[in-house]
Amino acid sequence: MIRKPLNFQAARDLTNHWLNVFLKPQNNLTDRVIEAMRYSAISTGKAFRPFLILTIGDMLNCPVEVTAQLATAVEMIHTYSLIHDDLPAMDNDSMRRGKPSNHVQFDEATAILAGDALLTKGIEVLANLPVSSHSKCQLISEVTKAIGEQGMIGGQMIDLIGEKKKLSLSEIQQMQMLKTGELIAYSCKAPCFIAPTCTPTKRIALTRFGLALGYLFQITDDLLDLYGNAAVVGKTLGKDKKSHKSTFIACLGEKKTRALLAHYVRTAQEATDVFGEKNKVILNAIIDYVINREK
Amino acid sequence: MIRKPLNFQAARDLTNHWLNVFLKPQNNLTDRVIEAMRYSAISTGKAFRPFLILTIGDMLNCPVEVTAQLATAVEMIHTYSLIHDDLPAMDNDSMRRGKPSNHVQFDEATAILAGDALLTKGIEVLANLPVSSHSKCQLISEVTKAIGEQGMIGGQMIDLIGEKKKLSLSEIQQMQMLKTGELIAYSCKAPCFIAPTCTPTKRIALTRFGLALGYLFQITDDLLDLYGNAAVVGKTLGKDKKSHKSTFIACLGEKKTRALLAHYVRTAQEATDVFGEKNKVILNAIIDYVINREK
Repeated sequence: MIRKPLNFQAARDLTNHWLNVFLKPQNNLTDRVIEAMRYSAISTGKAFRPFLILTIGDMLNCPVEVTAQLATAVEMIHTYSLIHDDLPAMDNDSMRRGKPSNHVQFDEATAILAGDALLTKGIEVLANLPVSSHSKCQLISEVTKAIGEQGMIGGQMIDLIGEKKKLSLSEIQQMQMLKTGELIAYSCKAPCFIAPTCTPTKRIALTRFGLALGYLFQITDDLLDLYGNAAVVGKTLGKDKKSHKSTFIACLGEKKTRALLAHYVRTAQEATDVFGEKNKVILNAIIDYVINREK
Repeated sequence: MIRKPLNFQAARDLTNHWLNVFLKPQNNLTDRVIEAMRYSAISTGKAFRPFLILTIGDMLNCPVEVTAQLATAVEMIHTYSLIHDDLPAMDNDSMRRGKPSNHVQFDEATAILAGDALLTKGIEVLANLPVSSHSKCQLISEVTKAIGEQGMIGGQMIDLIGEKKKLSLSEIQQMQMLKTGELIAYSCKAPCFIAPTCTPTKRIALTRFGLALGYLFQITDDLLDLYGNAAVVGKTLGKDKKSHKSTFIACLGEKKTRALLAHYVRTAQEATDVFGEKNKVILNAIIDYVINREK
């Protein structure tokens, strides 16, 4: 099922299956927060991070029952960040993945707790993966770095500061790398920690590939905010300009932003060189998907 | 230093020392969130959970450099829960530990991120403790259960529901056990996972001791909300009654609540029976502290 390249539907189905396993109603008053967790996590969205983990895990011969749970943990963590990002005090977004944001569907307090609980549950799933304790500690240590105050949360902080103050190009780059790039890079390299064999060369290459992919993802996100179709993208568009967000486009203009996109495409492509032909095709198909995506 | 029973100051000093180690400004724009993390975590407060970990860790002959880092991780996690609990959408508390709440001192968005980042950092510290990977996975797996949707967060959810709907006594008990009891129980049993030797009997006893202690802590909290001195307690008082919170006192009245307190005192005392005389004295001193505390 996972062997076909770019099979997003399989990644989404597998992730939803495990989300259903991990997020079961308990028939007591805690069910409200579980319902809110399920509302945002179990979705028809593209499951980009699970897709990366499953596809690259398959390239590295990882057992799919392990990568599927790892993918689900990362999707929980990604969903937590979206729920908190959408809060009125943060981006104040009322639409996400084509439906009302968590705090609109439930309420702000429930959304805060649902985000907290998804982060916590994601870590719990990692701590209970059917792999060695050593691998689990590596996976947890690396993910906390990727999403912590020097990772995703740090990026969100810079993003907030950027709403009030003009950021330099290097600050925007840092913001984008931290906010989006780190968890995407993690999704590319995490399978290495559970792979039966993965050379340091391949791990470094996948980290570089993932970081470049993170930039590509963010730049295309900014472009979609300008040119995308809200119905397809599934969230409010045109907000960056309205809120004077410090995006690559705001800082560099569109032409130079597209040149930067080309630069990161080359970086990502070069990183695939250490792989055999079959896997190079898959990794390059991922790059093509990201730069041509419509949502 | 830690050998003396009830040395809260030593626990606070040691925790603050490690908080300073783990939360260093980076000289970039992420420093705002680090500052907010430090503002709430590094404190002059009583550090009850670190105190439990250090004291019980010492009883079980755990190395203090390990228990001190474990204690710091748990204090980060506890602080995250306080920051989020104080948010306008949650308890809307403007005072905490004798100073403005995090969102008052900074802003709501920063407070949300600072809470998220403290939870994440607490897990990162656990994943990097200088103990075996097996112990670290146990510590992380157990803490995520204690603070997840079937633990602390579940308790906060029930608490919120209780603001709008009268809870039954068993629902209040569940709420208190989850919201406060689980992390206090964790603090009592976590040293077992890193102790050179700790029998299952002792671990079970410490878990029971911790759960009873959690109830004692919450009941005395409710009593302090009624009779405490705000300047000593360091937070807004009288809020439970005003907001019609479902507390033990609201449900049972004061007399029956004090009888329940006595019941949990006996439960906690009985749990200490498996320990030698010296350690029984320490554990009973902890019980006495909790029921007689003024803040």
